[in-house]
Amino acid sequence: MTDTHSEPITVVFALFPGVTQLDFTGPHQILGMAPDTRLILASIEGGELATDSGLRFGGVLRLEEIERCDVLCVPGGYGTSAAMEDEAFLLQLRRLAEGARYVTSVCTGSLLLGAAGLLNGRRAACHWAWREVLSEFGATPDPARVCRDGNVLTGGGVTAGIDFALTLVAEIAGETTAQSIQLMAEYAPSPPFDAGRPETAPPEVLAFVRERGERAGIVRRAAVASAAARLREIA
Amino acid sequence: MTDTHSEPITVVFALFPGVTQLDFTGPHQILGMAPDTRLILASIEGGELATDSGLRFGGVLRLEEIERCDVLCVPGGYGTSAAMEDEAFLLQLRRLAEGARYVTSVCTGSLLLGAAGLLNGRRAACHWAWREVLSEFGATPDPARVCRDGNVLTGGGVTAGIDFALTLVAEIAGETTAQSIQLMAEYAPSPPFDAGRPETAPPEVLAFVRERGERAGIVRRAAVASAAARLREIA
Repeated sequence: MTDTHSEPITVVFALFPGVTQLDFTGPHQILGMAPDTRLILASIEGGELATDSGLRFGGVLRLEEIERCDVLCVPGGYGTSAAMEDEAFLLQLRRLAEGARYVTSVCTGSLLLGAAGLLNGRRAACHWAWREVLSEFGATPDPARVCRDGNVLTGGGVTAGIDFALTLVAEIAGETTAQSIQLMAEYAPSPPFDAGRPETAPPEVLAFVRERGERAGIVRRAAVASAAARLREIA
Repeated sequence: MTDTHSEPITVVFALFPGVTQLDFTGPHQILGMAPDTRLILASIEGGELATDSGLRFGGVLRLEEIERCDVLCVPGGYGTSAAMEDEAFLLQLRRLAEGARYVTSVCTGSLLLGAAGLLNGRRAACHWAWREVLSEFGATPDPARVCRDGNVLTGGGVTAGIDFALTLVAEIAGETTAQSIQLMAEYAPSPPFDAGRPETAPPEVLAFVRERGERAGIVRRAAVASAAARLREIA
């Protein structure tokens, strides 16, 4: 028996090739500033991992090496479709989620939680462009930037990971600690434009981004359909 | 002779051990979504680089291998003092800045630009806790989140890198492209607290963060004094 109060909070970022790095580097920076946290990057293969912006991360563990975690965090990105079709990856998400205190995601990572069967009957956030896809996995899409439903904490697209992480730190370590981290990270955002949501972006910008996301196949309909079908078989 | 119009914009992130990863991963994600950009991580040693949150980056080039760049970007972080005392690093900053269209920084990276003699007579931003140190290098501290002075574009602390990068993309590729990237990254920030600036943070939070930064030696007075003295010798 271990005294869990003396143990650090273990956070596992479950990664896959083509992940969007800011989905997890934002939370990693914020959570890493909290006391007594142990942050782990892990993927199916381990080793060095390539992200969708070309950044490469070293020292990535293999998911199956990790016994348990307190926080499971699944980011999203260009590799979402492929990860959704990777049963070994989804299996690891299910296994690690089982013992976790918090099951979390950023961006299209919630679709991977969904494909793993972890969002059935839950409200969840997602990147705005693919939020509705959550319903294919029995979840209720929520437009919140950070959505809480029981022990499931999900963030919206990419940069929402910072807001998500501060919310999580406040839960785990208290509001004062979260505020200290916000001040250290000088998180008083001041975007030069007001185009961060489909409701505020100019129509031509919205059309361009929708088309670009579609063309990139970030969330392919076929991948969603087959993941949803496999999920129904398991259930 | 090469036609520079057909060449991508080359952005070099000049890194050092103990850099704060979000200082450059934020801009890297934003700039990487812009068309025709080539992003390079480089440090004195090259290879794998450890950051202050424990993340390790692979495939880092050696600064001296890089002939030139269009944008030089220097992040900050816990390793700032050591980088300020590394003459080889400052020499590479001076060399790359000479041919660059934009000389830029995030967080305490502006102190490294300053120590390299690149901010003499310029206004510049910096992390709020060390902004005044800029004056030791002949620069004028500016409280703006993103500060422009000629071809020098500097951001405030850590998360200001995202605002900085969107501002830079707007200059390089136009406002519509910057807005598209903002929408793709769902950058409609909604911090759970209003503690991101010393003016808005609770006093006890401000005191704690000041003390923690001091204790960590992020910007040591001795390192600043000796860098400023070396700079006077060069001038």
